[in-house]
Amino acid sequence: MLLLIPGPVQTRPETRAAMAQDIAPWDLDFRAVYAAIRERVRAIAGGREGEHATLPLQGCGHFIMEAAIRTFVPPGGKLLIPQNGAYADRAVRLAGEAGRQVVALPGPDTRPVTAEEIAAALAADPAISHVAMIHNETGSGIVNDPAVIGPAVRAAGRRLILDSVSAFGALPFSLADHPEVDVVVFTSGKCLEGLPGIGFAVARIDRVEASAGNAGSWSFDLSDVYQHALKAGWGSFRFTPAVQALAAFNVALDLYEQEGGQPARHARYRENARVFHEGVQALGLTPYLEWRHQGPVIVTVHQPADPNFALQPFVDALKRRGVLISNFWNTKVPTFRVGCIGAVTPEDMRGALAAMGEALEELGVRRRAPA
Amino acid sequence: MLLLIPGPVQTRPETRAAMAQDIAPWDLDFRAVYAAIRERVRAIAGGREGEHATLPLQGCGHFIMEAAIRTFVPPGGKLLIPQNGAYADRAVRLAGEAGRQVVALPGPDTRPVTAEEIAAALAADPAISHVAMIHNETGSGIVNDPAVIGPAVRAAGRRLILDSVSAFGALPFSLADHPEVDVVVFTSGKCLEGLPGIGFAVARIDRVEASAGNAGSWSFDLSDVYQHALKAGWGSFRFTPAVQALAAFNVALDLYEQEGGQPARHARYRENARVFHEGVQALGLTPYLEWRHQGPVIVTVHQPADPNFALQPFVDALKRRGVLISNFWNTKVPTFRVGCIGAVTPEDMRGALAAMGEALEELGVRRRAPA
Repeated sequence: MLLLIPGPVQTRPETRAAMAQDIAPWDLDFRAVYAAIRERVRAIAGGREGEHATLPLQGCGHFIMEAAIRTFVPPGGKLLIPQNGAYADRAVRLAGEAGRQVVALPGPDTRPVTAEEIAAALAADPAISHVAMIHNETGSGIVNDPAVIGPAVRAAGRRLILDSVSAFGALPFSLADHPEVDVVVFTSGKCLEGLPGIGFAVARIDRVEASAGNAGSWSFDLSDVYQHALKAGWGSFRFTPAVQALAAFNVALDLYEQEGGQPARHARYRENARVFHEGVQALGLTPYLEWRHQGPVIVTVHQPADPNFALQPFVDALKRRGVLISNFWNTKVPTFRVGCIGAVTPEDMRGALAAMGEALEELGVRRRAPA
Repeated sequence: MLLLIPGPVQTRPETRAAMAQDIAPWDLDFRAVYAAIRERVRAIAGGREGEHATLPLQGCGHFIMEAAIRTFVPPGGKLLIPQNGAYADRAVRLAGEAGRQVVALPGPDTRPVTAEEIAAALAADPAISHVAMIHNETGSGIVNDPAVIGPAVRAAGRRLILDSVSAFGALPFSLADHPEVDVVVFTSGKCLEGLPGIGFAVARIDRVEASAGNAGSWSFDLSDVYQHALKAGWGSFRFTPAVQALAAFNVALDLYEQEGGQPARHARYRENARVFHEGVQALGLTPYLEWRHQGPVIVTVHQPADPNFALQPFVDALKRRGVLISNFWNTKVPTFRVGCIGAVTPEDMRGALAAMGEALEELGVRRRAPA
C-alpha cells in the first residue's frame, strides 16, 4: 500500500523495523541515543548550542503546540493567530481553551498571510505579545513563510511561535536567522519520516527560562522539560515516552542525512507536488491552489461536481489499487487531499495518478476536458 | 535481555512485531480496530455499555492523569490525595499546577492508606469533591485497594479518580462494583503488556457529560474526547495517535484473553513477586515491604549498606548477565526496584536472582547472613 496521507507518513522499511523492540527508556544505552537525537534535531532547526534547546514531549502536534502556547504566552496573555486554514482554526481553539486571549486575523486559505497584514494587526494592538503561525497548512497546502513574516514580528518587537508540524525538515527554516522565534514545534511522523508519538520543540533557552510558571500544567510545561534535562541529563525523559518511536526516529534522521538533509528532501517533495498538481489537471480535475501558492507538503483538489463522486467510495476505489489517501477534508468547500511527504517519489505520484484515473472511470465520474 | 523494569514492560514477540508497520489512523480498516479496542478495554474495566466509555489519549500516564483531574475536578475545586508514595507525590504536584486545591493525606510508603484515614479526611473537609488515589505505587510496591477505599468515598458522598497506571488488568477491579468512581486511568505499556504511547481513561458517561468546560485544556479535555466519538465515531481519534502502539495493544489484548484475563495475569505476577521477594532474602538482602503489604507489580529492595554497593554498577553488572532493572529509585531511603510485570515468568525471576547473586559477588558486596 502506498500511503499518501499528510501524516503519519509512509516510512522506509529500516525506519519502521526499529519499532519492533522492547526498550528501557532510562537505560544508559538508550539515554545516549535520546541525548544525541536532541542535538541532531537542534542542528536541523538551525539552533545554536547554549542558545537553543530541543524539548521533546509525548504525544501529537496539538500537544506540543498547546505546550508552546502555555509556556511562552502567560495566562491571560494575548496572541495573534493568522487564521487562514484548518490548523490555524485549531490553534485558535487550543489557545482560547488554555485561557489565552486570541486575536484572530482571518484570511483566505488559498494564499499565505502577508507581512503587511501581520504588521497592521500588531500595530493595532500593543497588548499582543506573540504571533502563533502555522508554517504549512495541512488543510489547503499553503505555506505561511517565516522568512516573510518573521521580520514583521521582529520589527514590531513581538515574539513568534512557529507551528511547523507538517513542514519541519522539508521547508527552509533556521532559528539562527530568526531571533524573534521563541519556539518552533513539530512531530516525529511528518517530513522527517519517522513514526508518530513524539512532539518536539526547539526553543530559545533565555525565553524558556523566563517562562517558568506560565504553563498552568506540569505535563505541558516546556520550562520544566528544560529544567529536568539540566537536573537529570539530556538523555532523561520526565515521563515514559513512546520510546519505540524515538528509536525509529533516530534511524529516520540517519536516512535524512544520507538523502542530503533539508534541500534534498524539499526538492523531492516539491517534485512530488509538481507532478501531482500537473497530473490532476491532466485528469480533468481542479487543484484547490494556484501553483504559485502551492506548498510541497500536500496537494488539495476540488471534488468533481458530478454526483457520481463521493469521497469514501473514491478512497475505497483507490485503496483497491494500492493507494491510500485521506478520507476527510479540511477546507470550506469539498476537496480531497493527497500528501506528497514521506518515503514516496515522483514515480509513486505518477502511479497514484494512474490509479486515480482508473478510480474515476470505475465510479463513472464525469470531469471537464483535461487541461 | 530480560526487561525487569516497572514499565514499559517486556512484551511478547508477536506484540512488538505489530509495531513495524505504517498505519493510516483514520482509514476505515484501522477505525474498526480502534473502535474494537475501546470496547475490549471497557469490558476489562468492568464498564457497562451506555454507562461507561473508553476515552483514549496520546501520551503517558501523567498525561491521562492530568486529563482526568482537569476533566472531573473543576478549576479551583478541591481533591484529597492519599500521599503514600512517589506517584502520589507526582499527582499532588500535577493537580496543584493544574490549578486545583490539593489536600494531601500523608502516609508511610510501606503500607496502604486505610478506609478510616480517608473517611476522617473527608469528614474534616466538606469542600473536597474527589479523592485521587494511586492504585499501585510503582515506587515502593504497595497497593491502595479500591475495594477498601471505594466504600469510604461512597459513604461520604464523594467521587473517586483511580490512577491504575501500573495495576490495571492485573489487580482485581471492576467499575460495576464502584459507582463512586468517575474514572479509572492506565496506559498501554504496563500490565496489559503493550508498548508505550497511549493512555486510557474508562469513565462514567453521566459524569463526563456533566464535566464539559472544566478542563481548561482542549488537549486534556476528556469530555471533548467523548463528544468527538459521538460526532465522528468510536473509531476516530481527535489528533494523530501513536498508532503503532495501538495496533500492538490489540495483539496484546488477544494474548491477555488467551492467558485467561485478569485472574491469570494476577496469579503469574503474584508468583513472580513471591519468588523474588523470597529470593532476595535468600541472597541476604532486605525487601522494602513486609510480604503482607507487597503488591504483585514491583518488588523494592533496600540497597546493601556495604560501601562496595552502588546502584549503577550493580545495574551494569546485571545487564552484562542479560537482566535489565531500573537505575533509579523512588523511595526516601536508597533502594532498587525490580518489576514483576510484563511477559516474564517465575522462572525468569529465578534467573534474575541468580544473576543478582553473581553481580553482588563481582562487586564484593557483603550482606547479612541469608534469611
